[in-house]
Amino acid sequence: MNPSSPLEQNLDPQNWDAMRALGHRMVDDMMTYLETLRERPVWQPMADEAREFLHQPPPMTPTTPEAVYAEFTENILPYPLGNIHPRFWGWVIGTGTPMGALAEMLAATMNPNLGGGDHAANQVELQVIEWFKTLFDFPAEASGILTSGGSMANTLGLTVARNIAAEFDIRHEGLSAAPRTMRFYASTEAHSSVKKAAEMLGLGSDHLRLIPVDENFEMIIPELEKAIAEDRAAGYYPFAVVGNAGTVNTGAVDDLEAIADICQREKLWFHVDGAFGALVALSPELKPMVKGMERADSLAFDLHKWLYIPIEVGCVLVRREPDHFNAFATRASYLASHERGAAGGTHWFSDYGIQLSRGFRALKVWMSVREHGIEKYGQVIAQNVAQTAYLAQLVDAALELERLAPVPMNIVCFRYVVPGMDDEALNTFNKELLMRLHESGVALPTYTVLKGKYVIRVAHVNHRSRREDFDLLVETVVKIGNELKEAMGVGA
Amino acid sequence: MNPSSPLEQNLDPQNWDAMRALGHRMVDDMMTYLETLRERPVWQPMADEAREFLHQPPPMTPTTPEAVYAEFTENILPYPLGNIHPRFWGWVIGTGTPMGALAEMLAATMNPNLGGGDHAANQVELQVIEWFKTLFDFPAEASGILTSGGSMANTLGLTVARNIAAEFDIRHEGLSAAPRTMRFYASTEAHSSVKKAAEMLGLGSDHLRLIPVDENFEMIIPELEKAIAEDRAAGYYPFAVVGNAGTVNTGAVDDLEAIADICQREKLWFHVDGAFGALVALSPELKPMVKGMERADSLAFDLHKWLYIPIEVGCVLVRREPDHFNAFATRASYLASHERGAAGGTHWFSDYGIQLSRGFRALKVWMSVREHGIEKYGQVIAQNVAQTAYLAQLVDAALELERLAPVPMNIVCFRYVVPGMDDEALNTFNKELLMRLHESGVALPTYTVLKGKYVIRVAHVNHRSRREDFDLLVETVVKIGNELKEAMGVGA
Repeated sequence: MNPSSPLEQNLDPQNWDAMRALGHRMVDDMMTYLETLRERPVWQPMADEAREFLHQPPPMTPTTPEAVYAEFTENILPYPLGNIHPRFWGWVIGTGTPMGALAEMLAATMNPNLGGGDHAANQVELQVIEWFKTLFDFPAEASGILTSGGSMANTLGLTVARNIAAEFDIRHEGLSAAPRTMRFYASTEAHSSVKKAAEMLGLGSDHLRLIPVDENFEMIIPELEKAIAEDRAAGYYPFAVVGNAGTVNTGAVDDLEAIADICQREKLWFHVDGAFGALVALSPELKPMVKGMERADSLAFDLHKWLYIPIEVGCVLVRREPDHFNAFATRASYLASHERGAAGGTHWFSDYGIQLSRGFRALKVWMSVREHGIEKYGQVIAQNVAQTAYLAQLVDAALELERLAPVPMNIVCFRYVVPGMDDEALNTFNKELLMRLHESGVALPTYTVLKGKYVIRVAHVNHRSRREDFDLLVETVVKIGNELKEAMGVGA
Repeated sequence: MNPSSPLEQNLDPQNWDAMRALGHRMVDDMMTYLETLRERPVWQPMADEAREFLHQPPPMTPTTPEAVYAEFTENILPYPLGNIHPRFWGWVIGTGTPMGALAEMLAATMNPNLGGGDHAANQVELQVIEWFKTLFDFPAEASGILTSGGSMANTLGLTVARNIAAEFDIRHEGLSAAPRTMRFYASTEAHSSVKKAAEMLGLGSDHLRLIPVDENFEMIIPELEKAIAEDRAAGYYPFAVVGNAGTVNTGAVDDLEAIADICQREKLWFHVDGAFGALVALSPELKPMVKGMERADSLAFDLHKWLYIPIEVGCVLVRREPDHFNAFATRASYLASHERGAAGGTHWFSDYGIQLSRGFRALKVWMSVREHGIEKYGQVIAQNVAQTAYLAQLVDAALELERLAPVPMNIVCFRYVVPGMDDEALNTFNKELLMRLHESGVALPTYTVLKGKYVIRVAHVNHRSRREDFDLLVETVVKIGNELKEAMGVGA
């Protein structure tokens, strides 16, 4: 019939071999970039030229792929956040792996949409979820979905909790129809994403009641029981409790067994935020730390933190699949599944979350877990915990340093102390010290505030770190602190 | 001090050169996979062996990277959804490009977290957002954020709308404190994600009032005005209207100017769902189709659909940055930004959405836009629209086929008709026809239901398609329809 118009164009390479050659160069450069990480600073400020280069009007005309790649290597690649480096322990950010990066290229080549349909990618995600159900002792009837990370995993888990627990048809009627105001509970150390979820879901952050913690930063269980009783008496409708498996500030684990018992007795949904902490369950020796996690109604955790997978990938497991499905499923006419063909498949992930189009993040997890095996992940996680304990020893042994929290897992909070200096001055001092440490490029912890005290915080989910890296951290912190003290003419 | 323990291990390759060699093979294989797409079926059912291979207990021990890759090429790669193929026009799913796939490897190697901090990746995302602000005629004071896709972009836009429009402190108090029940409006053709957002945000899908459409599937504007007036009279609190720039069923564009006028007059938030349709603005000749879109308070659109970027990446723009910030910003103590160092940077994306950890999806957009330039994107989008019009002509010319909706943009809805067969029988007939078409591997449109009629639906956002591909589609549909008719012994 009608021949293809000679003017028809597409976005594929004009020269496939040139694109292959460019791909080879990229692979070589990226592998060398990762192999030589130790030789470079953890972080460096962006050069003005690079910053300016990224302020241009929209490009209207083409640039060769080779030239675009050169722009990338010149202006972007030299200025990473630093979290791939062996001496990065900031916030809680994983490192990634070479195989994980290559897997992303494979995933983006196939470029499937995991919202639904009958194709291999959905089976890969189901497989990954089955693995974590098994590893975390969840029952066969549990379901799960991979997410962008822990924030979304918490949000989805709490959405299920809210929708299933509500006394009324919340999906249709909305929260303004609630006969009683819904409330849920977490410790004061809960992650900011739990508060954000309370706001997003229309519950209101005032109705996320924060329970005080003890000296180990763990939820005080009798305070939880008291709060629930008070709220019931005041006419609120308690519906869920969030337990921490590894708090972001100090790595504390709430008494999950006790919370599970209370939830069972009070008929509340038990959500566990195990963003990084859940992963200690992969180490047989550390698994007892998160005892009770397996009783959660929903469990949120990240794979881009302590499973060292490239960002983004998290996961939420839900104990009973129908709860999960009933919280989200909605099929428009253009989404009805078919018995056969590409629109087949019995499990459509779009029924288990917010996203309809979903990428193939499962592949990097699947390939990485196949590559290393769960035993090795458990060993490296245990190594991280042992290295963290080692750092705590170093801090305790250093006269200039003060540790400000217990070290139950993988986080050390400490500060440089100057005798006679009050907390406010020490806060300013340590913040300046930390900024200088970043600028040195030697190591990159970040910070938090514990009981009004600004602390340098090492959160360790880095497979590349060695004990010598922590030696260098402590040496450098003490050195910068001493210099700063001298420059200020104090305490000398 | 303490030497590195000889037992310390990491997840980097034992042999970097072997990983380089494997990376080269992957690049070669992936480029060949894309270069030879036309020679393979669009889709094929998974082999039983592949399906079984993806049902195994968690692997405890390592596998070589080469063996893992072989498992991938054998069991996963042959069974894509098909959306990369030149004759895939199912749902609305983009194709991706080779450069987009390579960019994902670069992004995952750097593996930054774009939640915040002072590093290049954040600047790249800001650059991409600036480009789209310019291209979509948004003011300089607008803000934006890249998302997982259109569902999340709609959800974020509507969250801003809800939080900013509320008569009370909704973030703290939640919707149960609403003095009046909040309501918003969209046409009956609105995307399922708008309903999902209503549920997620606690508004309730009953309070997303759906306005009827005319014969062009566009919102009937007087009906919108009537609904708002009725709701105000009944004591509801109207707060937003969602306009469609390209509906998912038929590609209809609501009268965005009229909706903008109403929103201005009634002081309602104007959200535009431009998932794919917004992108026609990149073509100077098509841009008038979405006139009024530039007046939106928030605009949601996908880049993994009609910008042909690999999944996942969407975007939401918000007209006034403070609205955006005030809807989401919440800084925990471990997230306070600093004046200098890696924790510096004035713009933290985590203040503009739900995610705290955020991947480098901006890079594939940045590299692709640099590679092709906006003009070429506009040309390929216009080519898609012209090809769609060509398909509509072919359908109209085929005696066996009936077209069931106007074709304003890039979607054609049609069915095979058998004289004397009623709608119910035709629905079953056309569904069977479509499943056989999928199984043939020749072409992959999907389906929807329009006014009770099951239709085969071609939604075209595929840069690889040629006119001859649509010829083949029509030929094959007619052929399968004829065979089916004959097998059923009807109408012969």
